[in-house]
Order: sequence, then structure tokens, then C-alpha cells
Amino acid sequence: MGKRKKNYFVKHFEQIFVLTVLVSVSIINYYIPYKLAFLNFYYLPILIASYYLGRNQTLSGAILCILWVVIYAYLSPESFFFEQTRSNLFYNIMAWGSFLILAGIILGNAQDNNKQFLKNQIALSKKLAIHLAVSSGLNSEMDFDTLFPLIIHRLTEAMKAERTSLFIIDEENQEMWTKVAEQIGEIRLPLGEGVCGRVAETGETINVKDAWELPYFSKEFDLKYNFRTKSMLCMPITNRAGKRIGIIQVINKLEGEYFNREDQELLQGLVAQVAIALENSFLMDELEVSFESSIRTLSATVDAKHPLTAGHSLRVTEYALMIAREINLDKEEQEIIKYSALLHDIGKIGIHDSVLLKDGPFSPEERAEMNTHPAKTETILEKFHFPARLKTVPFIAACHHEKVNGQGYPEGLKDEQLPLGSKILAVADVFDALTSPREYPKYDGEKKLGFNPMPLAKVVSILKKERGHQFDPNIVDAFLRILPNALELHRGTHFPEEYINKYTETL
Amino acid sequence: MGKRKKNYFVKHFEQIFVLTVLVSVSIINYYIPYKLAFLNFYYLPILIASYYLGRNQTLSGAILCILWVVIYAYLSPESFFFEQTRSNLFYNIMAWGSFLILAGIILGNAQDNNKQFLKNQIALSKKLAIHLAVSSGLNSEMDFDTLFPLIIHRLTEAMKAERTSLFIIDEENQEMWTKVAEQIGEIRLPLGEGVCGRVAETGETINVKDAWELPYFSKEFDLKYNFRTKSMLCMPITNRAGKRIGIIQVINKLEGEYFNREDQELLQGLVAQVAIALENSFLMDELEVSFESSIRTLSATVDAKHPLTAGHSLRVTEYALMIAREINLDKEEQEIIKYSALLHDIGKIGIHDSVLLKDGPFSPEERAEMNTHPAKTETILEKFHFPARLKTVPFIAACHHEKVNGQGYPEGLKDEQLPLGSKILAVADVFDALTSPREYPKYDGEKKLGFNPMPLAKVVSILKKERGHQFDPNIVDAFLRILPNALELHRGTHFPEEYINKYTETL
Repeated sequence: MGKRKKNYFVKHFEQIFVLTVLVSVSIINYYIPYKLAFLNFYYLPILIASYYLGRNQTLSGAILCILWVVIYAYLSPESFFFEQTRSNLFYNIMAWGSFLILAGIILGNAQDNNKQFLKNQIALSKKLAIHLAVSSGLNSEMDFDTLFPLIIHRLTEAMKAERTSLFIIDEENQEMWTKVAEQIGEIRLPLGEGVCGRVAETGETINVKDAWELPYFSKEFDLKYNFRTKSMLCMPITNRAGKRIGIIQVINKLEGEYFNREDQELLQGLVAQVAIALENSFLMDELEVSFESSIRTLSATVDAKHPLTAGHSLRVTEYALMIAREINLDKEEQEIIKYSALLHDIGKIGIHDSVLLKDGPFSPEERAEMNTHPAKTETILEKFHFPARLKTVPFIAACHHEKVNGQGYPEGLKDEQLPLGSKILAVADVFDALTSPREYPKYDGEKKLGFNPMPLAKVVSILKKERGHQFDPNIVDAFLRILPNALELHRGTHFPEEYINKYTETL
Repeated sequence: MGKRKKNYFVKHFEQIFVLTVLVSVSIINYYIPYKLAFLNFYYLPILIASYYLGRNQTLSGAILCILWVVIYAYLSPESFFFEQTRSNLFYNIMAWGSFLILAGIILGNAQDNNKQFLKNQIALSKKLAIHLAVSSGLNSEMDFDTLFPLIIHRLTEAMKAERTSLFIIDEENQEMWTKVAEQIGEIRLPLGEGVCGRVAETGETINVKDAWELPYFSKEFDLKYNFRTKSMLCMPITNRAGKRIGIIQVINKLEGEYFNREDQELLQGLVAQVAIALENSFLMDELEVSFESSIRTLSATVDAKHPLTAGHSLRVTEYALMIAREINLDKEEQEIIKYSALLHDIGKIGIHDSVLLKDGPFSPEERAEMNTHPAKTETILEKFHFPARLKTVPFIAACHHEKVNGQGYPEGLKDEQLPLGSKILAVADVFDALTSPREYPKYDGEKKLGFNPMPLAKVVSILKKERGHQFDPNIVDAFLRILPNALELHRGTHFPEEYINKYTETL
């Protein structure tokens, strides 16, 4: 109980302070002879009250003071000994009292207004600061995969909520999907289902104290993940063109029972920032996909001119990426390898068909021309305006026929001069060349080697033999570890069953 | 002079108001018999003063009031007729005076603090509002060409300056460049030159009252454009990785002599937003350029398989864009036409070499296969993940052999069913096919038409003849208007001098 008393005292400290001053003044007034002049002292509690308690309480206090002095003067006029007549006394008290009230009104009003003004200003500043933080944070992120959790994180923080879900509307499939509703994995829902689905369909804002009371709220997730959705604020994300692109759902306000009007206004503003960030990242994503798509088409087009069967560059890309992942290269390095692999043979565009498609052994001049293709790859790709993160692609692609012992072409670069990406390409390229059927036969000098792929066991023994000579030992080792997966990927298609089986029997 | 008096009155309205009340109270006090009680009325001007004028002026006023009443009471104590003794009078005045001062202090202090607090809050809110407006504005713009003037416009507005320049650092060439320093055209400067060049090199912030006093300020532009650079605030733009990517130069503060510390802080914050927006747009731009680059390489690769001489698709693109500009299509439509033209023949990848490269007349089956290339173009491009703004490219490209009379292929679509872009492609494609030398001769049935381009006069007469049949009349008209430019573009290269001259002689 002591604690509760203390809390009461702390909470009402200002009222108690004013009251103490007021009572002190009244007691002094009772004992002092110069009562009329001392009446001025009543300004003290009233000024203090006006400062701390605002207009209404100050006015009540002032009126109480006046009543008290009027009653006192009526009951004992002789106490105010300066006054000779009752009417003089009346004038004095009236004048004093009026100004007491006036002072209370002026001061209290000013104080009230200022406080309200300040409160608004502080709220506005806070709101703007949150807006700005969210906006800068979101706008500096264009990668959708990073942006998605960032939006959820920032909104949960800004809205002081327990959880936030972000759904993206997939109009084509009449679905909406979310990647991570924190802790929970990817979810796809038909438009119209549940609270978010309703918001997606109608564009309305839903703001409730207890979501479980909504007839269209699905308790499924709550029950599954042992969660209790109470307050919920759910709003559509609309892009600049006025199209709904997603839904934001903020759940369980931490400070307070529900999301009030101010929260709703704050989220409204934040959602505008989210819309900009999402649209930018969609644009970027779309263009990334288009870029990759054009490179893949280009790669396939070049392959169509290739003496190996179609799909060579694509398979080299697959193998190279498997190796890259096996040796734990990061996403950016994997991307560089992907494009280097897709485009490594683009220089073959510049080789005359009479050489490229020759059905017979190459003369030394023809061999020399054929061997210019990596340099031509570099020339073509250097004219290509790659984004900064892919600036190394031309060189990596150009070195796919280099060998770690320095006996490759075009430059005869050695181990330490070769980028890791080229060493990966070298293994992947040779593996696919040896394991693919050919449209034109391969020749070893004058000797025709035929159209058929080399048996896998022989390919593996070549890779092992060239480990440390033609190829980087670590890359060969990594490749041999991922070989079963590479074979599995094309089992029954590029690699006939018996081709694989013949090899696995020898193991 | 009347106006100046009025201004003085408006400016000092509050002081005049307080003074009027004070004088009125003093005059009433002089005539009223109940002087002691009426002393309370002096609270009136003091309360008003405290509200309007702050602590110091209120205190001065209160002290003046006390002095006045003390002197009055000393000279004429009998006026305060209630008082029987001088000492009583002294107590009364002392009490009244003390509280007058106390009221002045409490009220004035509170008011001063509140005003300062409010001022800070308002300044902060304004700053945040500017930040937010600039940030949202800039971040919703990813197109560099639109972003550049937008940054200049927003910063000029936010900084209340006369002019803003934005320089982008081109590290490769050790230069910096600006597109539009408002009114003034594009400028390239070596790093290190002038104020911006210095900022670009050292990363310092330069803030001066008069730029002409800086030894390294170049007055050249001022003199050339009859401009006077006075105050100047110049700051580097640093990206998230800490690299300087540009310089912002704000010139001539409109309200005030120079940019103060607050202005500098504001710009510092805004420049962070500018950096984000610029980087996003660079990323986007880079990727756009890469995309276009890959499409152009793809287009050239397809052309290499083409029976027409290399560069067919590129020339069709040039002609199509000339027509598009001639009929005032907007930038977005021009872009669609550019990609449709570059890729219109990509379907030829899917035509067997034996047909595509046949040196002899086509059999009906071969002709049929050849004519599948527009449909194949559509199939390939539909698998292509174009960005949303280019979604119509596959269909436009697929219809380049359609005719407005419905007798084209593959669908036999008619005028109103054909997109404008296809009608443009049709004219550009036929014009280039007829005016280009061929690697394989063209045949009309069994008749070999040879390798040479058709004389221009004949080509023009075909276009005119097919106006309204094969081709859209407006497009033919537009093409004939831009024909001189098209010929000029390739004069002496694709079009030999005599080829053009032979035609122009006939005009």
C-alpha cells in the first residue's frame, strides 16, 4: 500500500504543491494584520497553478480563494482593519478577485495553448523522423530479397507492434504472397481470403481491437504457431498509378490496446514510402530478369552456331555454378560466374563458318583462327556495357582456355594470374565438351574421333591427370564432389541412362 | 514617410499595446480614490507584456511601475487615503511590487522558454518536412534524365537559393560534368578546377559569403552569363561506400547574406538523400545500358545469320526510330519500337540453314518455313522476360510482315488490328531489304534477282504504290519525309555516293 501512496503522490505532485502553497498563504493571511494588502499573495498559488495545471483547475482554484475571502470578510469584517466601510471593503475584494480571475484566464489559456502546440509539434517531429528513417532505409535498398524483411522490420519498429506481415499481390494468378511473416515461412493465398485478402480485394483499411472477432479472420495461423492476434491494422499498398500492389498488416500494438487514429495516419504515410521502395525494386528486378533473359537467349543463339550440341553454354553454366556453390563463393561471385559461363563462347560469332563448322581436321591456320575465339569473346564483351558488379566478366570469360601451368591460350597466363572464375569455367567447359555428342566430329590431328561423347570414366581420369597441370587442383576436387549431382541433373536427357550407369559400375 | 510610420507601428504593435494599457491604468489610478486596491490593475499590462514581450521587457516594465508608484506615494501619501501610517503604506507597496516582479519572472520565463522550444520544434519540423519531401520526390524517380533537374529544382527550393549546380564525378576521365546548371547547358570540367573541382578532389565543404573572393573561383561563367555569384555552399556527394560521386553547389541564399550553420546541416542531410537517389538511378541506368547492349549484341548475332548484309536489324531500328520521332511518338513508345526493331528477325534463329541460306529459289515448303520466322520471333520473345513497359514488343515484332490490307503473314491481320509499331517496322524493314546488297541472291519465283540493291527511285515508287495496301499511308508519308536524313546517315558507307546521287538526280 505504501507504494501505491507514493505513486499517487508522484502522479499528483503538481496539484499537491499548488494546494500546499494555497493553504500556507491562507494561514499566513489569517494571522497577519495587513490582510487587504496580503491578499495579493494569493497570486502566488494561482500563478503556480496556471503554470502547472492549465486553465480549468486554476480558475476553480481562483474562485475557491475568492469564496473563502468573501465568506471570511462577511463573517469578520473587523479583521480587515484598514477598512472603515463595508462598501470600500467590497470594492477592494471585487477588484482583487477580478484580476485574480483575469490572471488565471490569461496565464492558463496561454499555457494550455502552448502545451497543445508543443504536443502537436513533438508528435509531428516524431512522425517525420520515423518517416524519414523508414524512407531512407527503404530507398537505399533496391534488392527485393533484402528489401522485403527490411520493410517488415522497419514497420514493426515504427508502429511499435509485435508483428508485421507484407503481402505482394500477384494479379496474374489472383493470389497474394508473402516471403517471411517473421518466424513464419512463405505463404500464398488466393485474393479475397482472410483479412489481407479482403483488403487486397476492396482496398479498405481494417483496424480492429481484436481480430478474432472478425468473421473473415482465419485463426489457422494463430493456432498453428501458438500466436494470439489481438489488435490489427491492415492497409492496402497502392502505387503511384493507383494500383494496389500489396497489403501491410500490423499486429498487436505493444503500447496500448489498439492502433489509434494517429497510428493509422502514420502507417498511411509509411505505406507510401513502402510503395515507392517496392516499385523501385520491382523495376530493378524486372530489368535484371530481362537482362538475364537476353543474355540467355544470346548464349543459346551462339550455341546454335557451335559444333557441340545445343545447350553447351547453359550446361557449362550449370556445372560452373555447382562448383562455385561447392567452394562457397558468395552470391555476387556466383553471378559473375553465371554470366561468364553463359557468354564464354560468344567470340565464336567471329569465327568463319568454314572453320567453325569444318567437317575435317584443322590446318594450322584454321586451328589458329579457332583459337582466337576467347580473345574475340573478350573483345565483344568489353564493348558490352556490363553493370559495375559484372565488370570482370569479359576477362574471366576470355581465360576459359588458359591452363594453370601457363600452356593455355590466348595469353598463356599462369595459376596466380588467372581469376578463380576462369579456373572454374575451364573445368566445366572441358567436362561438357568431352561428355556431349557433337554435330561435327572432333579430330586429333588427322585422326577422326567421332561424334560420340567420351566415356565418363575416361573424362574423370583426364580431369584427374590434368589436376595441377591444365586445371586448378581445388576446382577439380570440388567438381568431382559435385559430379554425381551434375549427372543427376541431366540423367535420361543429355546423359542417357546407360552412359551414366557404365560409369557408376566402374566405381 | 507615412508608409514607414505604418511599418513601425505594425512592427512594434505589441510594445505599443502594452504601453497603452499601462498609461491607461496609470491615468485611472491618478483619478480613482481607491488607489491601493486599484494597484492590482497594474497586473494587467504586466500580464499582457509577459505574454507578448518575454521576461526582460516585462521586468523592466514592472520596475518602472513600482518606481512610479513609489515616487507618487512619497510625494503625495495622502492620495492613498486608506493608509493611516507611512509604514503601512510601505508594506502594502512592497507586497504588491514583489508579486508584480514575481509574476513577471514566472510568466516571462515560461513564455521565453516556450517560445524557444517552439522555435526549435518548428525549425526541426520544417527541416524534417523538407527532408521528407525531397527524399520522397527524389526516390520515386529512377530515370537519371528526369532525376537530374529534379535534384536541382528541389535543392534550390529547399535551400532558398537562387541557383543550384550538380556535378557528377567521372573518375575514369578525371572529370566532372553537369547536364543543366539551370539555364546553362552541359559543362565538363577537369577534377580540381574551380570551387567544385576542389571539393571533388579534397572532399571539403566550402561555404563563403562572396565566392569572388575565393582565389580558385572561376568568374568565367558569371561574366559569360551576366550572373553574380555571392554566397556559395559547396559540398561533396558521398555514396554509402564512402566514395565521392558528385558535388552540390548552392548559390546565392535568397533570405540572408550567406548560408549559416543550419543551412549547411540541412544540405548535409539532403545530400545524403541525393546520394541514394543518384546511386539508385545509376544502378538502374547501368542495368538499362547492359540490357540494351545485350539486345544489340543479340540482334547483331542474329543478323550475322541473315541473307541480307550484316546490320539489317540495326538499320531497320534507325529508320523505325526516325519515323517514330517524325510522327511524334513519346520516349516510351520509341523505346518499344527500338527493341521491336532490333529483335524483329530473331525468329530466323529457328529457320534451318538449308532454307535461310539457300542460294536458289524457294520451294513452296521452303517459302512456308521461311514465312514462319515472324511467328518464331513472337514465340522466342514471349519467353523473354521483358520489363513491363516493353510487354508489347513480342507482338509488334511478330507483325512486321503483316499488311494493312490483311494480305500479310503470319495472321493476315488488317489495319485496325495492327499496332502502330508494326506498321512502322513494315516500312523500315522493306526499305532496308530492298536497298541492301545481299549475300545470297533474291529470287522472284524461278527468276534470280541478283545481289544488288534496288535503285532508290524504284524502292520509293514501290512504297508509294503500296501506300494504303501493304503499308499504312501515314507511315509511308512520314518515311518519305525522313528519307533524306536516312540516306544522309549512311552516305558513303551503306549507301554508296552514286547510289544516292542516281536517285536525287531523278527528283
